[in-house]
Amino acid sequence: MAQLVHDFETGSMDQKDLLGGKGANLAEMTRLGIPVPPGFTITTDACRAYLESGTVPPGLFEEVGEHLERLEARMGRTLGDGADPLLVSVRSGAKFSMPGMMETVLNIGLNDTSVEGLSAQTDNPRFAWDSYRRLLQMYGKTVLDVDGEAFEDALDEAKAAKGVTADVDLDADDLRALVARFKAVIEEATGAPFPQDPREQLRGAVVAVFDSWNSPRAILYRRREQIPTDLGTAVNVQAMAFGNRGSDSGSGVAFTRDPATGETGVYGDYLQDAQGEDVVSGIRNTLHLADLERIDKASYDQLVDIMARLEAHYRDMCDIEFTIERGHLWMLQTRVGKRTAEAAFRIAVDLVDEGAITEEEALMRVTGDQLAQLMFPHFDPEGARTLLAKGMSASPGAAVGAAVFDSDTAVRLAEEGTPVILVRRETNPDDLHGMVAAAGILTSRGGKTSHAAVVARGMGRTCVCGAETLEVDTKAGQFTTHDGTVVRQGDTISIDGTTGEVFAGEVAVYASPVVRYFEGTMSVEDGGPLVAAVDRLMSAADKHRRMQVRANADNAEDAARARRFGAEGIGLCRTEHMFLGERRELVEHLILAESDADRQRVFDELLPLQRADFVELFEAMDGLPVTVRLLDPPLHEFLPDFTELSVKVAVAEATGQPHDTESLLLLAVRRLHEENPMLGLRGVRLGIAIPGLFEMQSRAILEAAAIVTERGGHAHPEIMVPLVGSVEELRNIRIEIDEAAHEVRTEHSVHLDHHIGTMIELPRAALTAGEIAGAADFFSFGTNDLTQTTWGFSRDDVESSFFSRYMEAGILGSSPFENIDRAGVGRLVRIGTDEGRKTKPDLKVGVCGEHGGDPESVHFFEERKLDYVSCSPFRVPVARLEAGRAVVKGLAR
Amino acid sequence: MAQLVHDFETGSMDQKDLLGGKGANLAEMTRLGIPVPPGFTITTDACRAYLESGTVPPGLFEEVGEHLERLEARMGRTLGDGADPLLVSVRSGAKFSMPGMMETVLNIGLNDTSVEGLSAQTDNPRFAWDSYRRLLQMYGKTVLDVDGEAFEDALDEAKAAKGVTADVDLDADDLRALVARFKAVIEEATGAPFPQDPREQLRGAVVAVFDSWNSPRAILYRRREQIPTDLGTAVNVQAMAFGNRGSDSGSGVAFTRDPATGETGVYGDYLQDAQGEDVVSGIRNTLHLADLERIDKASYDQLVDIMARLEAHYRDMCDIEFTIERGHLWMLQTRVGKRTAEAAFRIAVDLVDEGAITEEEALMRVTGDQLAQLMFPHFDPEGARTLLAKGMSASPGAAVGAAVFDSDTAVRLAEEGTPVILVRRETNPDDLHGMVAAAGILTSRGGKTSHAAVVARGMGRTCVCGAETLEVDTKAGQFTTHDGTVVRQGDTISIDGTTGEVFAGEVAVYASPVVRYFEGTMSVEDGGPLVAAVDRLMSAADKHRRMQVRANADNAEDAARARRFGAEGIGLCRTEHMFLGERRELVEHLILAESDADRQRVFDELLPLQRADFVELFEAMDGLPVTVRLLDPPLHEFLPDFTELSVKVAVAEATGQPHDTESLLLLAVRRLHEENPMLGLRGVRLGIAIPGLFEMQSRAILEAAAIVTERGGHAHPEIMVPLVGSVEELRNIRIEIDEAAHEVRTEHSVHLDHHIGTMIELPRAALTAGEIAGAADFFSFGTNDLTQTTWGFSRDDVESSFFSRYMEAGILGSSPFENIDRAGVGRLVRIGTDEGRKTKPDLKVGVCGEHGGDPESVHFFEERKLDYVSCSPFRVPVARLEAGRAVVKGLAR
Repeated sequence: MAQLVHDFETGSMDQKDLLGGKGANLAEMTRLGIPVPPGFTITTDACRAYLESGTVPPGLFEEVGEHLERLEARMGRTLGDGADPLLVSVRSGAKFSMPGMMETVLNIGLNDTSVEGLSAQTDNPRFAWDSYRRLLQMYGKTVLDVDGEAFEDALDEAKAAKGVTADVDLDADDLRALVARFKAVIEEATGAPFPQDPREQLRGAVVAVFDSWNSPRAILYRRREQIPTDLGTAVNVQAMAFGNRGSDSGSGVAFTRDPATGETGVYGDYLQDAQGEDVVSGIRNTLHLADLERIDKASYDQLVDIMARLEAHYRDMCDIEFTIERGHLWMLQTRVGKRTAEAAFRIAVDLVDEGAITEEEALMRVTGDQLAQLMFPHFDPEGARTLLAKGMSASPGAAVGAAVFDSDTAVRLAEEGTPVILVRRETNPDDLHGMVAAAGILTSRGGKTSHAAVVARGMGRTCVCGAETLEVDTKAGQFTTHDGTVVRQGDTISIDGTTGEVFAGEVAVYASPVVRYFEGTMSVEDGGPLVAAVDRLMSAADKHRRMQVRANADNAEDAARARRFGAEGIGLCRTEHMFLGERRELVEHLILAESDADRQRVFDELLPLQRADFVELFEAMDGLPVTVRLLDPPLHEFLPDFTELSVKVAVAEATGQPHDTESLLLLAVRRLHEENPMLGLRGVRLGIAIPGLFEMQSRAILEAAAIVTERGGHAHPEIMVPLVGSVEELRNIRIEIDEAAHEVRTEHSVHLDHHIGTMIELPRAALTAGEIAGAADFFSFGTNDLTQTTWGFSRDDVESSFFSRYMEAGILGSSPFENIDRAGVGRLVRIGTDEGRKTKPDLKVGVCGEHGGDPESVHFFEERKLDYVSCSPFRVPVARLEAGRAVVKGLAR
Repeated sequence: MAQLVHDFETGSMDQKDLLGGKGANLAEMTRLGIPVPPGFTITTDACRAYLESGTVPPGLFEEVGEHLERLEARMGRTLGDGADPLLVSVRSGAKFSMPGMMETVLNIGLNDTSVEGLSAQTDNPRFAWDSYRRLLQMYGKTVLDVDGEAFEDALDEAKAAKGVTADVDLDADDLRALVARFKAVIEEATGAPFPQDPREQLRGAVVAVFDSWNSPRAILYRRREQIPTDLGTAVNVQAMAFGNRGSDSGSGVAFTRDPATGETGVYGDYLQDAQGEDVVSGIRNTLHLADLERIDKASYDQLVDIMARLEAHYRDMCDIEFTIERGHLWMLQTRVGKRTAEAAFRIAVDLVDEGAITEEEALMRVTGDQLAQLMFPHFDPEGARTLLAKGMSASPGAAVGAAVFDSDTAVRLAEEGTPVILVRRETNPDDLHGMVAAAGILTSRGGKTSHAAVVARGMGRTCVCGAETLEVDTKAGQFTTHDGTVVRQGDTISIDGTTGEVFAGEVAVYASPVVRYFEGTMSVEDGGPLVAAVDRLMSAADKHRRMQVRANADNAEDAARARRFGAEGIGLCRTEHMFLGERRELVEHLILAESDADRQRVFDELLPLQRADFVELFEAMDGLPVTVRLLDPPLHEFLPDFTELSVKVAVAEATGQPHDTESLLLLAVRRLHEENPMLGLRGVRLGIAIPGLFEMQSRAILEAAAIVTERGGHAHPEIMVPLVGSVEELRNIRIEIDEAAHEVRTEHSVHLDHHIGTMIELPRAALTAGEIAGAADFFSFGTNDLTQTTWGFSRDDVESSFFSRYMEAGILGSSPFENIDRAGVGRLVRIGTDEGRKTKPDLKVGVCGEHGGDPESVHFFEERKLDYVSCSPFRVPVARLEAGRAVVKGLAR
């Protein structure tokens, strides 16, 4: 096995895989000459070998011993020394940050001998015995698996015996006694004394950190954050620096810019006479970082200088932990800092302006998800609010409504026009109708993969889940907060799906300035630095972007909006709605028609109505391509529900009510009823089974295009045939459309530039794309349906029934309806694209499933060199940004 | 363009693609020195060029002219000659025989001059003028598109004028007058006189034959017989030989063996003083071929000698047409003769015994479809019968029942226990319930791809369709035959789906001796020559067969039967039935259970019952592998239908009936209701969503195996997980099963040889087979479901709604549920097999969809080197035969 232990001096920040994030950054700072307490890192390789085999890899502790000796030599102190002992910390550090999920053991090296040395050296017996007490407690719990309460109880007893309540009121002698007690606790619980050998302590701590990779909370965290389970953690062994050695000592955290807004200028907290965990835990009130200048100007100046160097070196905003031990500044950690979406955009652009990074790098610093967050409505940050609880941000957005505790009531109130928030302990498939009716969903149980979260994201409903401080009592119709506030059915609450916050009453919602900018109702000048930053990066993305971005829009209004958002065409205009409303009656006639002539009469009535729809649409998208999908859903979707109508007729029959019309309709509904309508008579099958239907639609499209052309406009219709599985189907329909086009051209004497293509939304279409391309001008991957058939998932059925269980069990990392499934569906996209283009090199290939607006999927489509993605109008900016980023990412490789 | 015309001397029987079947065989006979009237063949290339461009390919008629001159020189006669004219026939001849579908023109070369020459040469003016009359009539109709009735009317007038009724009563002068009349008819209809130039006649006839490739009846025939539409036909131009020149002349057809039984010995019909069409048309009673020996021994001996030579040369039974012209024998056609299934087996084996062919060749002379035909029940050939009509053999078998004319009545009578034959003009999706209820289906309209035919084959129902002589009156509830016989509702009829025959009354049905042989209830000795032949060829197939053949069987009885039929294991034991019957109540408890403990109680009750089922099964298949599929269907299939129950509850509510139980059940049914159950909560998803379910089934299987082993038997359970789409699903379940196996092994202390595998029935499973193989011991392709998801077809819905239309339109050649779709589903099978084996070279791969028993599909699975096919018990012999044939076919390549 390769080298398992690396001194900080020999690593670098590029070695996160091997050294973990913390270890790599400590090494980097060391290399830069920044004051870091010396130490070394045990690699993730060592951890993985341990986790796989269950035993520490051979030679590991020999290597650790060698590095420890070098550390001792360098520090001039040895572990366990009775005069001037070295103490070390043992900290986890995985590739991806998992804050608080794994173990840390401090003060390794203290024992009955060295505690006296520390006491003498620091001239602070209380500090020495308190440090030893802390080691026993931490080591006992973490390494020796002793119940933590035993230590807490002993501590409480000690304080009670002395009649004090705070730890700080215990003096050195009290702590010395407590150390004896803690040692007894350990011996009682484990049957063995606390190891006095510091090297044994170190070995125990290392193994405990390894083990903590697979602690239940760590497993759960990784599942939620989609962190691979087999990475393992590195272990950092580092000389201790103490911030709790008096008022000339202290600890702090700092950011090189404001992580909330992106504003320039240092930003952070400092706590005198304290260790790092005291700052983070929030027990004591921290000072602003700026106050350090007053307290210890030398350290402050040095810190500010280091922060500038780190930012210049990392070329990004950094997040820092530091300790000052008796006037000596030590850096304990740095990393590229987490930030809000707003800060991400502003910092990226500022760094470009400062000459630190290029525009391309700036693009890699922001994401489409962040842009989407900036576009969701937010609660007015200035508005009054009372926080009731905080849960998990399960599905973004801001929703206000009356709290209701059961789905039937949710549906009833929603139908009466009252917006509602459905509040449940957790949801299950029976709540689906309530979730559909609600403006938002709030649960007190379950995480980001719970039923509520999965279904809400699927429906685009705002959702906060797992707000565990709430006691939800559905029977009583109320919930109680941690402070006893009771919210009853009908009380208004507000939930923020982006932050997970739950507020009492109505919080004002404000539209995102970013949306107003995209809409054209707010100028870049008026929009402030955020809008300016978005504008800059959208331009940069558009400059690099290779793929077109189109929108899925069914009418002129949506199309116009999409165009304002930057859509370069319509990638999917569904035509179902053109058969609804007042036209539904005509569709019933069509279904009940008994002859071709009857059907033709219906078509003759429908054609001018639909033609008018298309004229509006082509005018809204003047000059841009518009892909119109011919009728896709099964005809029974235009008729009443089979079960409902059956009940109606049966009840009317049983009670002697008239029901002739319904009975007649029921015959048709029964005839058209299908066991699996998704796999039934729909799409191109309808076009072939009902002669004249697709011809009518095609004529309406082409005549509308001719009319728009005659008026001086530019219509570019692309007629798209759905659900094709074999080239023969497309050939059949193509003949009809080409004939209609020939006739329309003759009738109108205009040049008509029409294209005929097909959805690729069945596995067979992708598998035979080479043949199908022979009859198609373009392909559009319908990745929703393709996901359904490739997986054999009916989205309506499975998302609400077992997706949450699949995510809990780790079978699905994310829903394949949200992020494209590369191995399955993605492979079909690759086959379809490559083989289609082999037949027809200039075949235009796009995607019009919801994946067209999903960042991860957009990157995949760029890899596959699709010509365009099409998504909902609101996602168009996200798709533009990600399509540009995907190109830049590709260049970087 | 290459040579477009070939003399018979230069071709051979291998050139069917180029010369058509007839042309290639005429050339072959010519090469063999057998007397064939000389001539030449215009290639299919020429026809295709004409059909594509709409004009005769350049140079064609020049080439024809050169060959014609050579023919004239050779015959010493010229076309149109006034003294001794040459006459030629112009006949179509495609690669595949399309009897009667295309055109023929005889007697080309006769005109006003040459008719006198023919008259003088033959010394038979009547013959000459009758020949000219026939040419005018045939040429007028075929080439010049004159309405045939005009000629028939003129002929009738001539006979009426003379007061006779038969053509033969017209003498030479009458015919001369009729010729004048026919010429007038042509000139009136076309505005131009009948072409006197024989070369113009020839050119017209050739083009007419080309055109006839695309006549509606030819197109329809090709669609029915699945002959490609773009082959085109060759055209044979041949010197005429006349069998109608007196009693020393005649025509006949002959087979070198009996095509009905395969019996050795010549067999055929002969008609004196007649042309070939008179023999075929059946207007005059023919003589047995043996009678020719008496009439013209020289010709007879020569014929028998030629037949022997042909059979020896073709090494197969031949079908022959010949003409004797004034004592001179001419062979007009030969080809490998069509034969019944019985004859196919017997001839193949006899030829082996005679040393003509090898056993391997014999295997290539029979098919699984023929074997299947021999296994269907047949009407007793000796039984009394009255033929009412003959339609198309749409779906094989023999069915007897009461004629009914609407589906509701069919269902009602069937429920009362009366077998029925559903008689319709044609069927549509509304008839589905009637088709399900009927023992057989009879229609008067539509071909082998009509709705009735497609659906009946899908259901395995006997069906005769397109019995066009029947007048079906559904309103009156009766049908009338061509001779006026009326069959009324309730009258018993018998239909033979193998021959297309419809009989009055009940015809005795007898079980096939071949089935009795397979069943072991008839020995080879008692079975006669057919059973002996089947036995020989089954042994030959088994000797060559590489793939195992298993059966799909759900219980011990079916398994035992399958084993008798030669199954080498069970490839699919569905476990659904183990939750039905008296156990349905337990399943309801399972569905309504509210806790794991409730569910466990149900499992505890189910386990011993199912274990007993498995013990029986393993005992029946002792020593052979048994693949058991864990529960697949969605749970709501065990509950009442959603719509029916909704109606019941609503009606009870409206009429004040008690309905508490139903209402409670309705809640569960509604909760489990799915829009697309095929794509819902089923298969492995059930196993994951309902903890304990698959574990219970696995324990039942493994405990049964342990019990059988303890009793000294040999159980080889293979546990199969259905509907896996991702390796994670299988890994999850595999852990449960392996744990159960470990426990059972410990409890029983026996060696248990269990395997765990998965169905590959979703596109994603095939596409990620490389991953899935990591967790599977075997794959079994579920090609039914794989076809459904690959095509996006719900079989229940689409076969009855639009498959017939798809076949009529040529979009589907055959149902992908009958023959595997190589391009789509087949590609997934290839990907799944190859990539699965790449991961795990010893992965066992089989198929358990219905395609496992389909000959064409079995050949595909052999090409893909699957380890086994599994099919219904009855299809096992077919699969054995075809699996062997597939190997031999592969060797032959």
